[in-house]
Amino acid sequence: MESSMIYLDNAASTRVDPRVVEAMLPYFHDYYAVASSEFSHSPGLKAREALDHARNTIARRLKARDEEIVFTSGGTESNNLALKGAAQSFQGKRNHLICSSIEHNSVTHSCKWLESLGFHTTYLSVDQEGFVDLNQLEDSIDENTFLVSIQHGNQEVGTLQNLEAIGKICRSKEVLFHTDASQSFTFLELDLSRLPADLVTLSAHKIHGPRGVGALYVRQGTPIKKQLHGGYSEFDLRPGTENVAGAVGFGKAVELSTSEHVKRIRMMQSRLADGLTHDIDDVVLNGSQDLNKRLPGNINVSFNRIEGESVVLHLDMRQIAVITGSACFSRSLEPSYVMMAMGFSHERAHGSIRFTISRFNTPEEMNRVVETCREIARSLRSISPLHKQGV
Amino acid sequence: MESSMIYLDNAASTRVDPRVVEAMLPYFHDYYAVASSEFSHSPGLKAREALDHARNTIARRLKARDEEIVFTSGGTESNNLALKGAAQSFQGKRNHLICSSIEHNSVTHSCKWLESLGFHTTYLSVDQEGFVDLNQLEDSIDENTFLVSIQHGNQEVGTLQNLEAIGKICRSKEVLFHTDASQSFTFLELDLSRLPADLVTLSAHKIHGPRGVGALYVRQGTPIKKQLHGGYSEFDLRPGTENVAGAVGFGKAVELSTSEHVKRIRMMQSRLADGLTHDIDDVVLNGSQDLNKRLPGNINVSFNRIEGESVVLHLDMRQIAVITGSACFSRSLEPSYVMMAMGFSHERAHGSIRFTISRFNTPEEMNRVVETCREIARSLRSISPLHKQGV
Repeated sequence: MESSMIYLDNAASTRVDPRVVEAMLPYFHDYYAVASSEFSHSPGLKAREALDHARNTIARRLKARDEEIVFTSGGTESNNLALKGAAQSFQGKRNHLICSSIEHNSVTHSCKWLESLGFHTTYLSVDQEGFVDLNQLEDSIDENTFLVSIQHGNQEVGTLQNLEAIGKICRSKEVLFHTDASQSFTFLELDLSRLPADLVTLSAHKIHGPRGVGALYVRQGTPIKKQLHGGYSEFDLRPGTENVAGAVGFGKAVELSTSEHVKRIRMMQSRLADGLTHDIDDVVLNGSQDLNKRLPGNINVSFNRIEGESVVLHLDMRQIAVITGSACFSRSLEPSYVMMAMGFSHERAHGSIRFTISRFNTPEEMNRVVETCREIARSLRSISPLHKQGV
Repeated sequence: MESSMIYLDNAASTRVDPRVVEAMLPYFHDYYAVASSEFSHSPGLKAREALDHARNTIARRLKARDEEIVFTSGGTESNNLALKGAAQSFQGKRNHLICSSIEHNSVTHSCKWLESLGFHTTYLSVDQEGFVDLNQLEDSIDENTFLVSIQHGNQEVGTLQNLEAIGKICRSKEVLFHTDASQSFTFLELDLSRLPADLVTLSAHKIHGPRGVGALYVRQGTPIKKQLHGGYSEFDLRPGTENVAGAVGFGKAVELSTSEHVKRIRMMQSRLADGLTHDIDDVVLNGSQDLNKRLPGNINVSFNRIEGESVVLHLDMRQIAVITGSACFSRSLEPSYVMMAMGFSHERAHGSIRFTISRFNTPEEMNRVVETCREIARSLRSISPLHKQGV
């Protein structure tokens, strides 16, 4: 990595912690056995123990039981398993599900696929800050509804939904509640001994664990059918040879994610938000205006009268890596569907820029980013036709 | 790892090569970016390049095009994608598929699942050596058949099917041909510029690559629908953040698998087979009797009048790790379905023992294994009730 570069793009902010890699290494070569082997010699037993330990670390963080944690290949697979697995289990009985219009595309595209099979979906609208309307949620649930899927923190604008309230509604209406907590896990408390969620998507790489591993929390007794067929591993919900090293890395990443980090990230978030919106003219924060209702590492802004792409390119030239709001999802230049759902114009949806702050960043970097953004805004606006026209 | 131990179980024989881990390391921390990022700073570009390079290494080994290689989370997912993806694409047009009765359970269980959706499957029988009857295959294909799925090398008994002949039949009957080459890839040549296969399952961990990564070869133009929904990565066939380190490890593992290794493994295979069947009374080789028609690393035998489990336990006590024939698939003590399909009695199906030889083994180890097996056989038979009764 180039040390002079400041990394605030969501990829950099998810790089693997060296201590995670360290923890994984023995499970590549020394303790490699298939964790489910019957007559286990010692490397096999160590692999089994390591898998159990990782599962337990994740379960404890959620106040869940070990057997409620199903390892998968990542957040996308977990979301697919949750939605399709629940749908299949209700097939012929109930055929309606509900999600928000700003879910990750692995949720919305799973819904679309289910629609092709005869299910139907209600996509809840969100307000200008990205919050779901709880009354609309309540009104949308009918006797055919089997599942509500609403994310914890939004991947672009960082808005945090009120999971307690949503869970309460789902319980009272007797429908399953799935939440995609890929972005929030370990950054925010999720106490599943109290929160009435039935299915929770988790991802390792958002917390400096490895790519290619995630998990789905499945509350005991939740009716769900496996979506990959083969062997009987992961409590018969996810076949395939266990990725022991990956699970170990995930467990270690959870262990290393502390509330101290979150405090530091919150402090940097606050500094960056203040700097961008107060020290630079016409910069607006997208998503929740209350920073406590945002993912700790997320800042998403629009620079009025400047295209987001231009700001990103100019930041890149000045050694600051960020991305446009929707860059994770599309290589095209389509406006962010999250911003559009929040009711913004094409222009503002296009212009959004996402900063993802991780524990690898420093407060000093935030200052440099604000300063650099101010220069870029001044320089770009001085040549912008939009600016000259006073639009 | 305990150095005095001889590892011939299929888990040990798939441990990761240290050079593979070495190759992966930079992609955990230094070049971590999402490979599909739009405005890529240099770590992102390096991740993209590494992914492309790994894909190219695999494609070249198969004489395929880069864009025909779709990375997945492993062989199980690849088999699911091949069968369900093809089925979905033929839904409403053709509803019949064919596989052998000794396929990996990720194939047969995918078939069972498809049957629950209205498809039907012909499970081809196999002969005593595990070979599919080509006439039966030809006779089973009708106008409703869309896919034939027959593995290259069997996971338990090592029998290699005649892919050329099967492919020719499929082409002439205009049905898709999928082969699960998880066990054989790089150990045996697969030249897809000549072999008429449309879908080929590949796995990294069988060749000392990492767990949690595999691929599906999809011949250009093959009608197949993605099974996980979300983003557009992997040519819109497999969404999810790319596991760059995993793909790099897979590519490196392919690079490191040479014909020299295969020669050495073949030599050890031959020595082990000869020793077990000639130096010990009443040991029979399961699967193809022609070693050239077996996976290079596979030896599967039954010790008449002794239970396989006992031999495995006694070998374990003498520092030799092997497994029973079906251990990969079931923690129960059910007899191997592969052996049963080959027409053997419960007793013989129960008693089979699988040795998996890798490049980490030595010819000297083969001698020690034969010697130890001879002692164990002598000792167990002297106390066996079956033996005393002269059964």
